[in-house]
Amino acid sequence: MNPLLDGGINVNSTTVVIGASGAGKTTFAIQFIRKGLESGQEGIFVSLDENKEQIIREAVEMGWKEIMDHLKEERLVFIDASGKDFSNFIRKELHSFVNDWKGAGARIAVDPLTPVIWALENNYEQRELIGMLLKQTRRVGTVLCTLEEHGTEGDLSGKETAIPMYLADCVIHLRYKAMESSTNRMLKIVKCRNSWHSEVFHPYRIITGLGLVVQHENFRKTIKKESTVLLVKELEKNAHLLPKNIYQRMQKTFKDLTDAELGEISHSELMRHVIEEYS
Amino acid sequence: MNPLLDGGINVNSTTVVIGASGAGKTTFAIQFIRKGLESGQEGIFVSLDENKEQIIREAVEMGWKEIMDHLKEERLVFIDASGKDFSNFIRKELHSFVNDWKGAGARIAVDPLTPVIWALENNYEQRELIGMLLKQTRRVGTVLCTLEEHGTEGDLSGKETAIPMYLADCVIHLRYKAMESSTNRMLKIVKCRNSWHSEVFHPYRIITGLGLVVQHENFRKTIKKESTVLLVKELEKNAHLLPKNIYQRMQKTFKDLTDAELGEISHSELMRHVIEEYS
Amino acid sequence: MNPLLDGGINVNSTTVVIGASGAGKTTFAIQFIRKGLESGQEGIFVSLDENKEQIIREAVEMGWKEIMDHLKEERLVFIDASGKDFSNFIRKELHSFVNDWKGAGARIAVDPLTPVIWALENNYEQRELIGMLLKQTRRVGTVLCTLEEHGTEGDLSGKETAIPMYLADCVIHLRYKAMESSTNRMLKIVKCRNSWHSEVFHPYRIITGLGLVVQHENFRKTIKKESTVLLVKELEKNAHLLPKNIYQRMQKTFKDLTDAELGEISHSELMRHVIEEYS
Amino acid sequence: MNPLLDGGINVNSTTVVIGASGAGKTTFAIQFIRKGLESGQEGIFVSLDENKEQIIREAVEMGWKEIMDHLKEERLVFIDASGKDFSNFIRKELHSFVNDWKGAGARIAVDPLTPVIWALENNYEQRELIGMLLKQTRRVGTVLCTLEEHGTEGDLSGKETAIPMYLADCVIHLRYKAMESSTNRMLKIVKCRNSWHSEVFHPYRIITGLGLVVQHENFRKTIKKESTVLLVKELEKNAHLLPKNIYQRMQKTFKDLTDAELGEISHSELMRHVIEEYS
Amino acid sequence: MNPLLDGGINVNSTTVVIGASGAGKTTFAIQFIRKGLESGQEGIFVSLDENKEQIIREAVEMGWKEIMDHLKEERLVFIDASGKDFSNFIRKELHSFVNDWKGAGARIAVDPLTPVIWALENNYEQRELIGMLLKQTRRVGTVLCTLEEHGTEGDLSGKETAIPMYLADCVIHLRYKAMESSTNRMLKIVKCRNSWHSEVFHPYRIITGLGLVVQHENFRKTIKKESTVLLVKELEKNAHLLPKNIYQRMQKTFKDLTDAELGEISHSELMRHVIEEYS
Amino acid sequence: MNPLLDGGINVNSTTVVIGASGAGKTTFAIQFIRKGLESGQEGIFVSLDENKEQIIREAVEMGWKEIMDHLKEERLVFIDASGKDFSNFIRKELHSFVNDWKGAGARIAVDPLTPVIWALENNYEQRELIGMLLKQTRRVGTVLCTLEEHGTEGDLSGKETAIPMYLADCVIHLRYKAMESSTNRMLKIVKCRNSWHSEVFHPYRIITGLGLVVQHENFRKTIKKESTVLLVKELEKNAHLLPKNIYQRMQKTFKDLTDAELGEISHSELMRHVIEEYS
Repeated sequence: MNPLLDGGINVNSTTVVIGASGAGKTTFAIQFIRKGLESGQEGIFVSLDENKEQIIREAVEMGWKEIMDHLKEERLVFIDASGKDFSNFIRKELHSFVNDWKGAGARIAVDPLTPVIWALENNYEQRELIGMLLKQTRRVGTVLCTLEEHGTEGDLSGKETAIPMYLADCVIHLRYKAMESSTNRMLKIVKCRNSWHSEVFHPYRIITGLGLVVQHENFRKTIKKESTVLLVKELEKNAHLLPKNIYQRMQKTFKDLTDAELGEISHSELMRHVIEEYS
Repeated sequence: MNPLLDGGINVNSTTVVIGASGAGKTTFAIQFIRKGLESGQEGIFVSLDENKEQIIREAVEMGWKEIMDHLKEERLVFIDASGKDFSNFIRKELHSFVNDWKGAGARIAVDPLTPVIWALENNYEQRELIGMLLKQTRRVGTVLCTLEEHGTEGDLSGKETAIPMYLADCVIHLRYKAMESSTNRMLKIVKCRNSWHSEVFHPYRIITGLGLVVQHENFRKTIKKESTVLLVKELEKNAHLLPKNIYQRMQKTFKDLTDAELGEISHSELMRHVIEEYS
Repeated sequence: MNPLLDGGINVNSTTVVIGASGAGKTTFAIQFIRKGLESGQEGIFVSLDENKEQIIREAVEMGWKEIMDHLKEERLVFIDASGKDFSNFIRKELHSFVNDWKGAGARIAVDPLTPVIWALENNYEQRELIGMLLKQTRRVGTVLCTLEEHGTEGDLSGKETAIPMYLADCVIHLRYKAMESSTNRMLKIVKCRNSWHSEVFHPYRIITGLGLVVQHENFRKTIKKESTVLLVKELEKNAHLLPKNIYQRMQKTFKDLTDAELGEISHSELMRHVIEEYS
Repeated sequence: MNPLLDGGINVNSTTVVIGASGAGKTTFAIQFIRKGLESGQEGIFVSLDENKEQIIREAVEMGWKEIMDHLKEERLVFIDASGKDFSNFIRKELHSFVNDWKGAGARIAVDPLTPVIWALENNYEQRELIGMLLKQTRRVGTVLCTLEEHGTEGDLSGKETAIPMYLADCVIHLRYKAMESSTNRMLKIVKCRNSWHSEVFHPYRIITGLGLVVQHENFRKTIKKESTVLLVKELEKNAHLLPKNIYQRMQKTFKDLTDAELGEISHSELMRHVIEEYS
Repeated sequence: MNPLLDGGINVNSTTVVIGASGAGKTTFAIQFIRKGLESGQEGIFVSLDENKEQIIREAVEMGWKEIMDHLKEERLVFIDASGKDFSNFIRKELHSFVNDWKGAGARIAVDPLTPVIWALENNYEQRELIGMLLKQTRRVGTVLCTLEEHGTEGDLSGKETAIPMYLADCVIHLRYKAMESSTNRMLKIVKCRNSWHSEVFHPYRIITGLGLVVQHENFRKTIKKESTVLLVKELEKNAHLLPKNIYQRMQKTFKDLTDAELGEISHSELMRHVIEEYS
Repeated sequence: MNPLLDGGINVNSTTVVIGASGAGKTTFAIQFIRKGLESGQEGIFVSLDENKEQIIREAVEMGWKEIMDHLKEERLVFIDASGKDFSNFIRKELHSFVNDWKGAGARIAVDPLTPVIWALENNYEQRELIGMLLKQTRRVGTVLCTLEEHGTEGDLSGKETAIPMYLADCVIHLRYKAMESSTNRMLKIVKCRNSWHSEVFHPYRIITGLGLVVQHENFRKTIKKESTVLLVKELEKNAHLLPKNIYQRMQKTFKDLTDAELGEISHSELMRHVIEEYS
């Protein structure tokens, strides 16, 4: 995911992964937890639907046999809860649970978030509950929640889908479209606060023994910095129009820009914006 | 079904077969039970709508006259229940029923699941009930539930349809589309946990005396392993970049890949993914 | 209807005829009852909406003057009921009414079924009620219920429409589409348990003095058995691969197949299916 | 309307005229009442929305000044009622009102029916109420109810629209479609029990001083009987295949057919239908 | 507006102006009131949403500085009410308020009507309330109510929108469509009782200092009376077929017709209609 | 924003910024507050969802490090409230809070408004609440509320979205459309009371370190005043047709018009409008 997200998912951020049945949400969650454990983080897997056995079986099937050791040595904690139990936990105990937490940056997966939302019927309360969950959990680690698509295929605008999307820092859509002669799976980063992110759809496949494999071959070319070099030169020409601290800040900002990020915005347009905003 | 599902439906898994009126769901369920009985498994047919006589008549019409013997000798048990009765059974008795079960891998068909879902009105409770049913029944055998399509034709996103889809291990869609000059019946495997599966639509027909016949002639060509041989060679070239245990695992993984599974993902793309993930 | 349904509607089966306002549902029901009376069966016409006079007037208008004699001599019984009354009758008295029935194979028309469904508000209970009605009435004769289309034109997926469709043995759609310069009326057999049926749309017209006239001129050509002769030959070639009893059954099955039924499935494909299923 | 309806609206029948705001429903109702009064019938105008003054003003504006005399001399009765009052009247008094009625074939207009339907909230009860209204009123005359289109433009499938359509003998749609550079007004007869009717859309305009003017110039050509002459000849050839009374009836039936009614059905097809049905 | 409406909005009529946010409803209402005041009528502005200040500011911005004088000298009365207060006023006091009113033909603007409708939840009661408001207010003047579009863009079929449309004498739609490279604003007269009206969409713009400016340049050409001269001649030829009083009335009617009103209806068609209706 | 809005957002006005998840609403709100603080105004940031830390982090990430000083020196006040708390505050305390306020023109951001709306369930009450909030806050400053898009992508017609749009003075839509190979972000000014505004969609991007950058390069060309010079000349020719004060006012009005504002309206059309309205 790194090339798509300018360094991957941020620490202490919350990510929502949305997808229909068959899109690979649980597989994504397992990969997320595995990566954390392999780099020494702790893992918490909250399963709202399935039994532990089913998910572990899937993990092993993906070639991750070490999961058994992580479980035994309690680096990975597995929580099997109903939507209502977990929603009660969020309201009554999560806050003090987080305060008592001592570990370093854990990875927390909630798969899927849907039953937690369905435990309440009122949109306002659903929002408050999910807000509480995300706010508290990101204090102790990096959070990934999977979310089922309900409603028309590929449409993310239903309230139950939209609420977690608005509240999370990062939203990833696994679009799964059944077509006559092929199955179209596409990954799209919908938003990512505080980070630049890819703005296009990337095909991905689920490969036995590997899990999700995202294709971004062609995309790599667009994240070079060729045209932004010229932009910095244009900034120099306009240096006299800007306060010194702004000029210095823009020098740094422009150097970090990639061609993909700049898109079709012209140098003069961007330059004018800076002058209007800061001079 | 075998060529589409890498060895057919897994033992101790749950499958949901979705289709509109006329798609052939009951026929599919009868074929599923017949195959089990012919290979020595026991069969349980839970009918939520129809009377025993109607289904047996359909089985005999399909040429399966032996069903009468199976029933008489109790290798096949037939349960006629209302949605509410069965839903009460799931909540109160299923767990101890399963604990007491002594038989080897039975085949269980629930046809259709719809009245069980309708017995409850709240989505959260529907989900909990179906979750309980699937979790318990897969402990004693291979489970197949049929599910009616409600909502726009071919759209599987309504909650009552989506809940069982998210909870089942395997989802098969029998798409039935009435067109001016022909009837279009297509079978699509929407998801199948732990197994590779075909990702395209396969035409099927319902033939008097035979039941569902799936057409997959052209598909067979795509499951050869020509290009994956080259992939293994590429892996060898990159052996030095990978830990030894990963290298060995990937060798095995790559050998099992088929061309259909690999799809349009290039060798270099897959190789890079493996290196990024595991080195 | 015979050429479309491999011998017409089965005895002791239930058929649902769906159509919008103006499609000709009542006309269809009158023709169904007339045919029964002319071949010596008894008739029961349950009218949920209209008064007897209106329907008799329509029958006479169609040229069926004998209806008056049938009524007088009680070969045809006319029941005028409200949806709620009839729904109470189904729940409380239908079972013993059926048990006491002595006549031979009657024809029963319910026109329209809609107010019976609307008498209840809960989908689960609607399903149970319709299930009870169909299950009991088919014990004493051949049943035909008309059903109003509600929801988008030609869309049969609303729950009130879908419930009777799923429960009936046979479903016929009278699609009525108003177009700029003509009115398009098409008859389609959506499903028919235990019988082969036509899979295409057939134009029909309502002709004064005749009622519904279905056009199936071109269709007749497709129900010959030319190509299935070759199929039997192919079976003979593969005789050694099949158990003897299966071989004999398939010989009979293949001889009864028509070109229309076989559709685009190739001989080799069908042959392979049989070998996979039964050898 | 006569050429479109094989002699116009039948006596003692009920007609529903559906249209959006601006389609001309009230104008249609006024013309319907005027024609009756001019041919010596009595008129009853039930207005559920507007005050008498507004409608009379519109009638006079259309050139029908005599309405004032008809009112004064009580040949035309004007009833101003709320939906709830009128719905109570239907349930409690309409039956005995009709029994006491002494006049000859009146014309009754209800404009619009919508508030009567809205007076109840349950679809079952709405249906029962409208059924009662139509059943009773057609005993004393010719009934015309206007109905507002609610829901998507030109879509008649909402329940509140569909209920009166299913219950009425005759349904006329005034389709009103606003387009960029013109307003498209089309009249379509959706159904008409016991009468042949035009099956195409006819443009109409609302002309100051005249009211609704339906264009059916081109349509007139299609209601000749050229091709049906040949049909009678074909019948003669097949006389030996039919019982005598059927042959005589068919002679009469075929002579009354028009080319428009026969449509694209071929002579041989129709002939075959008759032989199959009656021989 | 005059050329579009055959002399503008009628006295003692009710007009509903519908439009989305940004369409210019309030601007339209201000212009309506201004025109009345400039021609000596009184004005009543009922604001359900905004404070007096905001609307007066907008009026002044449009160049109408005299509004201040009108307010001071009480020729213009400004009412600031909540939806519920105003709805109570309609039910309890409006009738006697109207009876006590002494002024000559006032202009009354209600901006917007929406909160009045929302003050009730039941469609039947909303209809009754709006009916009462329109019926009473038109007794004392010319009434204009603005109405918000809710539901899909440009779709006027939602019940809350449709109710006032059916009840008002005149309906004007300000269609506001955001397009990629321009904003499309179109005015369409949906209906106008007792008056001929334009049947096409007219572009309009909102110009600073002027308000709504409707473009009807091309439309003017179509309201000439060229072809209707010929129509009168045709009438003369058919004079012998019509009663004398009808002939005289038709002469007058035909002379007032414009080409736009006649549209594509042919002279012979119209002539035939008149003969069928009146001879 | 200035070139798009004829001088930017007005003082003492209320603006609603609508956008889906990922559109950049919070970024917009931060930029709005920053501009105010940099020009000496006070700032109030009401956050309904997020914690202060998250938003400050985002502000700093955008290069606005001075936010920390503003907070410390209380030029910027940060309010973290739940939807229900804030809605209670609006109803009970906002009025007196505003009366007690002493500061000069503050900038107030509410991000997002959605939970405030959701705190109530009835549309009428939501409207009243939002009306109260906007009415009071604009008395003390310039208000910007962000609003989440719920419902189909880019559709602003849902009631919860439409209510604030109708009540606000200015509405800005950040349309965010995910497409196969790019992400389409477009800014559109839907309405702006009392100001001319751009009527087209403008692409924008979110640039790391800068925030929202709106592209309006091509648009600038259309806001010249070339053709309006000719319009003033035409006015002079018609001077004799207008009252003197109107003539003078129009001179001023016409001189301020831009080509973009005039659009496709012709000089003669506009001239005629003025003469009809004011002569």
